[in-house]
Amino acid sequence: MAEESDELVPKQYKIFILDVDGVMTDGGFYYSSKGKVLKRFGPDDADALGLIHKIIDIRFVSADKKGFAISKRRISKDMGYALDLVSANQRLGWITNQYELSEVIYMGDSFRDIEILKAVGLGITPGSASQKVKVQSDYTTDRDGGHGAVADACFYIAEIFGVNI
Amino acid sequence: MAEESDELVPKQYKIFILDVDGVMTDGGFYYSSKGKVLKRFGPDDADALGLIHKIIDIRFVSADKKGFAISKRRISKDMGYALDLVSANQRLGWITNQYELSEVIYMGDSFRDIEILKAVGLGITPGSASQKVKVQSDYTTDRDGGHGAVADACFYIAEIFGVNI
Amino acid sequence: MAEESDELVPKQYKIFILDVDGVMTDGGFYYSSKGKVLKRFGPDDADALGLIHKIIDIRFVSADKKGFAISKRRISKDMGYALDLVSANQRLGWITNQYELSEVIYMGDSFRDIEILKAVGLGITPGSASQKVKVQSDYTTDRDGGHGAVADACFYIAEIFGVNI
Amino acid sequence: MAEESDELVPKQYKIFILDVDGVMTDGGFYYSSKGKVLKRFGPDDADALGLIHKIIDIRFVSADKKGFAISKRRISKDMGYALDLVSANQRLGWITNQYELSEVIYMGDSFRDIEILKAVGLGITPGSASQKVKVQSDYTTDRDGGHGAVADACFYIAEIFGVNI
Repeated sequence: MAEESDELVPKQYKIFILDVDGVMTDGGFYYSSKGKVLKRFGPDDADALGLIHKIIDIRFVSADKKGFAISKRRISKDMGYALDLVSANQRLGWITNQYELSEVIYMGDSFRDIEILKAVGLGITPGSASQKVKVQSDYTTDRDGGHGAVADACFYIAEIFGVNI
Repeated sequence: MAEESDELVPKQYKIFILDVDGVMTDGGFYYSSKGKVLKRFGPDDADALGLIHKIIDIRFVSADKKGFAISKRRISKDMGYALDLVSANQRLGWITNQYELSEVIYMGDSFRDIEILKAVGLGITPGSASQKVKVQSDYTTDRDGGHGAVADACFYIAEIFGVNI
Repeated sequence: MAEESDELVPKQYKIFILDVDGVMTDGGFYYSSKGKVLKRFGPDDADALGLIHKIIDIRFVSADKKGFAISKRRISKDMGYALDLVSANQRLGWITNQYELSEVIYMGDSFRDIEILKAVGLGITPGSASQKVKVQSDYTTDRDGGHGAVADACFYIAEIFGVNI
Repeated sequence: MAEESDELVPKQYKIFILDVDGVMTDGGFYYSSKGKVLKRFGPDDADALGLIHKIIDIRFVSADKKGFAISKRRISKDMGYALDLVSANQRLGWITNQYELSEVIYMGDSFRDIEILKAVGLGITPGSASQKVKVQSDYTTDRDGGHGAVADACFYIAEIFGVNI
């Protein structure tokens, strides 16, 4: 979360890290008797990420072990982005080990993300996050997770960078 | 349902019993020509239950025979909680035989749950329940079934117990 | 649609005919590359129909040929009601050939149902129907198709019959 | 987008071109670990298109390569309309090469459609499009993509043509 005294200095942001479930999806897990078999990804997000990845690096994290093959298929194979399996407990450490927190834009929707949203340079939540998560973020998108929230975040980031998409 | 004269005495609650369909899901059954093949489970619920199961026992009931293998897969195999098949007619008796009603927190969304919601120590309904069910409960969550209702219920229970999660 | 001068005389209603798609479902068809493979049925509806079928006969119609095996599986095999394949064009005639229109309660959501909703004794639409259909019905349910609309209709019918469910 | 000085002269419109994802669907892609396996199509749309195709030609375009077999199955095999795979970048050129822009009614929901919505005779967006897309269209439907938006567009077009459906 940006300190109130911060100014938005685009060049400070070097990486956009996104959670998958609840951000790229509406958080739903479709189960058969054989387990987690489907996730629903939304409109506009892939297109909008494709436009901003020229101005900022993009990568994804997920804590969902049982659905990881599904997320991997969408995020890495079909969209071409790195996706790492990082538990909620270890996530802030995993980010801190690799980046200056002030350089990081993070988008998450879970109460497990609050600590990260507060620590990073810019914390973004989808409109579908619960109130207790939203109040800890710098920006909440109009649209919900799995319904264009990531596209809205991309439009916002492009605006910060002064890029017209 | 708590009598108006009741005070919230956390220690009185020993067990949190949850219905599955409409509570952990949005109540939808996905059918192919071969029958009920999918249910959709929601975000945050498993994480939030994982945090309160240290302070209160948790178990699930379902009346859905044809979809029981799907519920079992999610609730028992993947999340690790007990799940029993108990019809709507027999449910209140099944609870009474095992627990003091005042010790029970029950979460359900159906008009078949009204009798139970009124009888237990604390009755909770998801935001998606119909009005006639909501008015019989002590607490209605902000979010809908399958969309974080159970997580909201867990936050509420943690608050009653004075636990910070 | 009931004439304004009508009184609600419960015994006049002998049959409750329901459309399937958009009424028992939210109208969605889930397609794979092999065709229509899934429909989503909602909460409470089967339970509520189970309670009123003692006071009024219940049957279903559908115009969806390609998804008929799915509807048949849910409505007839799992719920036990008659389901006939009747096109929109032929539906009013099909009803008239078998029933006095004043004895019929019909529930539908499509603009193709308008003619029927106006002709029968009592026309019901789910909350999710479009405005042009709703204004032609006698009663619109609070909840949407596939989200409890049929249960709401059953509660309404039970009330007309003076039955407490 | 129609110039403000334009009058609605029905005969000027010769072709209704529709995007598929987000228009005929809610934009969601259902993924298994094997890839994009399902899309959800909505109510009323096929019926309403069936009524206006006598007064205007109808065809579909999609930029979704990986889900094209699914769209093809619904749009071409089951509904009987032409569907072409045309990327967002090439779409306006593809339209211009075949039609007078003033003769075209185009319905799309993506920010990639803005250029087209502004260029054609009549631009339509579903209620679920983001605000930045809606403001560039001539008409926004009440209902959302995959939830009757195309049916609403058809009612609107029928009205322009003075046809009663």
